[in-house]
Amino acid sequence: MNARGFGFQLEHLDAGSAARLGKLSTPHGTVSLPAFMPVATLGSVRGISVDQLRESGTQMLLGNAYHLALRPGSDVVRQLGGLHQMMGWQGPILTDSGGFQIFSLARLTRVEEEGATFQSHIDGSTMVMTPEKSVQVQEELGSDIAMVLDHVVGLPAEKTVIQEACQRTVRWAERSRQASRRADQVLFAIVQGGLDADLRRECSEQLVKLDFPGYAIGGLSVGETPQQMLQMLDVTCPLLPADKPRYLMGVGRPQDLLEAIRRGVDMFDCVMPTRNGRNAMAFTDQGPMKLRNRVHHGQTRPLEADCPCPACRHSRGYLRHLFMAGEMLGPILLSLHNLTYYQRLMAAAREAIAGDRFLDFMARKEAGWASTAD
Amino acid sequence: MNARGFGFQLEHLDAGSAARLGKLSTPHGTVSLPAFMPVATLGSVRGISVDQLRESGTQMLLGNAYHLALRPGSDVVRQLGGLHQMMGWQGPILTDSGGFQIFSLARLTRVEEEGATFQSHIDGSTMVMTPEKSVQVQEELGSDIAMVLDHVVGLPAEKTVIQEACQRTVRWAERSRQASRRADQVLFAIVQGGLDADLRRECSEQLVKLDFPGYAIGGLSVGETPQQMLQMLDVTCPLLPADKPRYLMGVGRPQDLLEAIRRGVDMFDCVMPTRNGRNAMAFTDQGPMKLRNRVHHGQTRPLEADCPCPACRHSRGYLRHLFMAGEMLGPILLSLHNLTYYQRLMAAAREAIAGDRFLDFMARKEAGWASTAD
Repeated sequence: MNARGFGFQLEHLDAGSAARLGKLSTPHGTVSLPAFMPVATLGSVRGISVDQLRESGTQMLLGNAYHLALRPGSDVVRQLGGLHQMMGWQGPILTDSGGFQIFSLARLTRVEEEGATFQSHIDGSTMVMTPEKSVQVQEELGSDIAMVLDHVVGLPAEKTVIQEACQRTVRWAERSRQASRRADQVLFAIVQGGLDADLRRECSEQLVKLDFPGYAIGGLSVGETPQQMLQMLDVTCPLLPADKPRYLMGVGRPQDLLEAIRRGVDMFDCVMPTRNGRNAMAFTDQGPMKLRNRVHHGQTRPLEADCPCPACRHSRGYLRHLFMAGEMLGPILLSLHNLTYYQRLMAAAREAIAGDRFLDFMARKEAGWASTAD
Repeated sequence: MNARGFGFQLEHLDAGSAARLGKLSTPHGTVSLPAFMPVATLGSVRGISVDQLRESGTQMLLGNAYHLALRPGSDVVRQLGGLHQMMGWQGPILTDSGGFQIFSLARLTRVEEEGATFQSHIDGSTMVMTPEKSVQVQEELGSDIAMVLDHVVGLPAEKTVIQEACQRTVRWAERSRQASRRADQVLFAIVQGGLDADLRRECSEQLVKLDFPGYAIGGLSVGETPQQMLQMLDVTCPLLPADKPRYLMGVGRPQDLLEAIRRGVDMFDCVMPTRNGRNAMAFTDQGPMKLRNRVHHGQTRPLEADCPCPACRHSRGYLRHLFMAGEMLGPILLSLHNLTYYQRLMAAAREAIAGDRFLDFMARKEAGWASTAD
């Protein structure tokens, strides 16, 4: 990467798979890859303080340009010193461009070559998002890594519709780069193409020619089967340059992360650890655990005996009680556990790659998850 | 106090008022008095981890026998190792007997000499609480200080009704003590008497004869004016033994705490810092601040420049944004600020008493609060 303070180093390739160990440098610090980014949609990871995020092992966060542009407004974030200063998070931040939210959240969305016109999901007001506007918003937010505005289409869709969206995504990537001004922010491109291998290939090749400092794989985790998603990774990853970071957007379950790492993906973001935590679901090495279940009533064991998170200093019986009584601390503690679980999984994956035993590691994890905790 | 590990030391009397500096020893540690106890109704201070509580300066917590008896059940708390172990709070804990909740929360309450029969506010099931049962529940919870079951009556009420409740409260105090078994728990008596000075005097004198290790003043902060409450303290405090701790239940605003300390009260509990924090109200030296107010939009200053709490590392504009966007972190951060505010106020009060300048300190604080932040 050519911008100030940025760099990507490939440190080791796993002997038995395409899994990569790497380092991503940004003006706000270095991230060991593979890495998982918790989602701070509106400038906070729901219910979690920045101190607690750091203690969970989190290195880098994701913010959403779409959400922050609506509330409190990217101008207000800039006035409050930018996203890092506003949140009190001095580590690296990546912001999403808004492409996904315009497709999934906004109403009456109309996409034309110039940009997307849509109604805010908050107050119904009409808004326009163009590639240039998304770059401007993300420059006001001041993230380390910004994403290009992409055209996401709902699946299933006609091949011609997906193809048109792909080609537009490439043109918008080019326009985004032209609009980019900040020397302390880099822009990643996003590969689209639905579940069509040819379109994924075509989109990858065109974007690679444009030589972006990093590449994301978008438009997945939108309802397709895990198998379909992995097929798209099988097609796309080998076409992306080895010396650039690869980011799979919005994914996913622990097993999805390992399957993607095995195929050469370096970065992830997902609301699952926090959203599921708020709904009383804990990730464990024995599979998901539902804390509202009667089986945990009065249970003195912690969620996981070897986990250092604040939730695992308590009993399952206490955590269940907090959820049954509607106490806020339940969602907070389970969010912390799940974030810690994801970060420990990533740390263990990095160690396994360094030791050339990623597939063994993955097989052991998957056997545990298949046993199902309850 | 005669039970194992307990003690009360009066360290200094303020030269200009009845304010007292003291130390309360319990099997779970020592508390500097005057002290404020945050309320962990159901075994958690809403949204706050025990680490965060400690960082706020909290020395001692309050739990509610009524609430914990309903959910998860005091037998379950005992099974989970008692309240300290269940919550992961190794400092002192005081539990309320349930008298106040039976009066304020339960339905169809009928009080007879044996005890109170009422319907649970959770599921309407009929329950009976007697002095002996309340002691048993609190022994299962394993608090350091338990409270006797008292008969609280709603005000206004006929003098004969209040008098009868007072006399019953004295008889129940005696029965509670007879029922007490744990050597690592002491029992405080509760002075009732509504807003009637004669009844307060009568109740105090009778309870003092029974020689309890500590005395609470109950049945206040239930809708009377601050002036009426202070009149009752003026009557009651001088009648309580100087060598026993005094606890004003359910009070109150910062100014109420200082007025009570000035009259010789040592201990307090109140939901106000956390409840108001959840509703976007911050306590400051310039009076209460409502964070939803438009005036805080984009405001870069912290709530209080000299406050070490996690909220004050952020701008008012960010805190406002969190509330406007419905982010959980807003209520959490403001609860932390308010708890820290109360604990710093108590620490400053202790310092002022030690320096024989409590009334000066109080006048300065009151002048600040009167200026009103917004």
